[in-house]
Amino acid sequence: LALITDKKVVVLVGGVGGAKLALGLQQTIAPENLTIIVNTADDFWHYGLRICPDIDTVLYTLSGRVNPQFGWGVADDSTITLDSLRTLGEDPWFTLGDKDMATHLLRTHMLRQGHTLTEIVAHLATQMNIQPNILPMTDAEVATVVNTVEYGKLDFQEYFVKHRWQPTLKDLSFEGIENAMLSTQAQAALADADMILFGPSNPWLSIAPILAVNGMRSALLARPVPRVAVTPIIAGKAIKGPAAKIMGELGYEVSAQTVADYYGDMINGFVYDQRDTPLKSHGLKTVAFDTMMKTSEDKRRLTNNILAWLDKLEAI
Amino acid sequence: LALITDKKVVVLVGGVGGAKLALGLQQTIAPENLTIIVNTADDFWHYGLRICPDIDTVLYTLSGRVNPQFGWGVADDSTITLDSLRTLGEDPWFTLGDKDMATHLLRTHMLRQGHTLTEIVAHLATQMNIQPNILPMTDAEVATVVNTVEYGKLDFQEYFVKHRWQPTLKDLSFEGIENAMLSTQAQAALADADMILFGPSNPWLSIAPILAVNGMRSALLARPVPRVAVTPIIAGKAIKGPAAKIMGELGYEVSAQTVADYYGDMINGFVYDQRDTPLKSHGLKTVAFDTMMKTSEDKRRLTNNILAWLDKLEAI
Repeated sequence: LALITDKKVVVLVGGVGGAKLALGLQQTIAPENLTIIVNTADDFWHYGLRICPDIDTVLYTLSGRVNPQFGWGVADDSTITLDSLRTLGEDPWFTLGDKDMATHLLRTHMLRQGHTLTEIVAHLATQMNIQPNILPMTDAEVATVVNTVEYGKLDFQEYFVKHRWQPTLKDLSFEGIENAMLSTQAQAALADADMILFGPSNPWLSIAPILAVNGMRSALLARPVPRVAVTPIIAGKAIKGPAAKIMGELGYEVSAQTVADYYGDMINGFVYDQRDTPLKSHGLKTVAFDTMMKTSEDKRRLTNNILAWLDKLEAI
Repeated sequence: LALITDKKVVVLVGGVGGAKLALGLQQTIAPENLTIIVNTADDFWHYGLRICPDIDTVLYTLSGRVNPQFGWGVADDSTITLDSLRTLGEDPWFTLGDKDMATHLLRTHMLRQGHTLTEIVAHLATQMNIQPNILPMTDAEVATVVNTVEYGKLDFQEYFVKHRWQPTLKDLSFEGIENAMLSTQAQAALADADMILFGPSNPWLSIAPILAVNGMRSALLARPVPRVAVTPIIAGKAIKGPAAKIMGELGYEVSAQTVADYYGDMINGFVYDQRDTPLKSHGLKTVAFDTMMKTSEDKRRLTNNILAWLDKLEAI
């Protein structure tokens, strides 16, 4: 299959779902024309290491390293260090594989040497032979804090991993977001994009922090090109993770419509699933496809469908 | 074998050689009466982790975890993370085993939480079921810098591990030593000691930094008890490591006598090896034993011999 070489594409993603779309795009778009901007509000310090779950999921997915069963982590990894931590009386609730650990060590090392996260991700991507451009949403440290009914405020990974997103969400905040600037690299990619996609990631946990980075909203609104979100909700259910649960807890109807409305004027197009009823478009261009991405072929088909639809739209 | 319960012993040690004597003492002295003060000038930051080679060698030796072939590191350890770092283009010259890694992660984590190194070592020792009291020489960060003919100044682990102590030493310095205070725990142990031993560790690299901690020399001189060094040199050769090589490069005769003279008034007794000629004592009490410690029985015999000799000396 020939790669599409005449379109510059930027995609905004969180973890597993977004990484799948990014993999589809990697199989479709010429690598020099593809930029993936990744949420970093899930990042945290753990045992002295800087962990970037969404960035690592994208790196591992695009390099073919990912554990296919989980959609995150490295395939065929072991947990010798983690097991040894347990013998030292620790209760390490966040999985750190032994192969995976190398990524955290190198990242932490480079951060302490004074490199930006953008530089570090570029280095890791190069070392993993990934060609498209992967960018963290910002170089600043941002931390999602989840306010819950049961426990009050929780750090994101405590909520997400330790408590398996079971506590009831009251609201969310992104600590440090006031200092988070859009990097010059992200700004340049957006300014040059022929189309901008929002991955089928959690709108509140993954895409909202990206949109909250200083300069992001105006950079998006400045682009008179397709800005199209792919639904993370199919037939009232999240494909993966807590998106549907969170929507309910925040008082929304669990639907693709809610996601489209939430993104508001950030988007001008929306891809919903063919299992769903058509959206009330409010001027949005909408289209229905099979948005489930299980196989590699699913990913390629969905991205091809989206790109063909956008081509046709432009031609009208 | 009954433990000796009426003697409080403090021993000053570096890495492998000192740890062996400490193990002999652990098999001989009641645990509540044994304090091991460990050099920390070899400590360094590596891939974002705080590594304390001498402390870990003591912890692993006294807990039975140590790799018997090397005398350091954990037995039956693997290097999955290290191998993964190599696939990311790194050249990690310092061995970090996967089991060993847990120690570094927990230590770094606790340091970042604000715990002192003394507290952290106590916690690690407890988790490893070690009963004697292991103390870092200080809670401050001290870094041995080795000035070499071939490369100029090298960080200690670069000199010791990366260059396998082959560069020619011109002189040494202990960066940060001016801020290194003797901890209250070390001070209390010394003030209470019935005998103080200097392990068969490298006098310049392992014992000198301990003696250079502010308050250590006066704390030693204040004690009217046996302060006895065990030779690291047998028949003009170091038992292990660069002690003999360094002595030569610094212009000394390679002998137990040189070590005794180097320690000067810090000691009032010296154990040399039975293969050597008697020391010119200069008022020092001296004795010759078999100081090679290969087997567990060797360690116990040497410590028993030293303690019996000191008992006899006191009785005179």
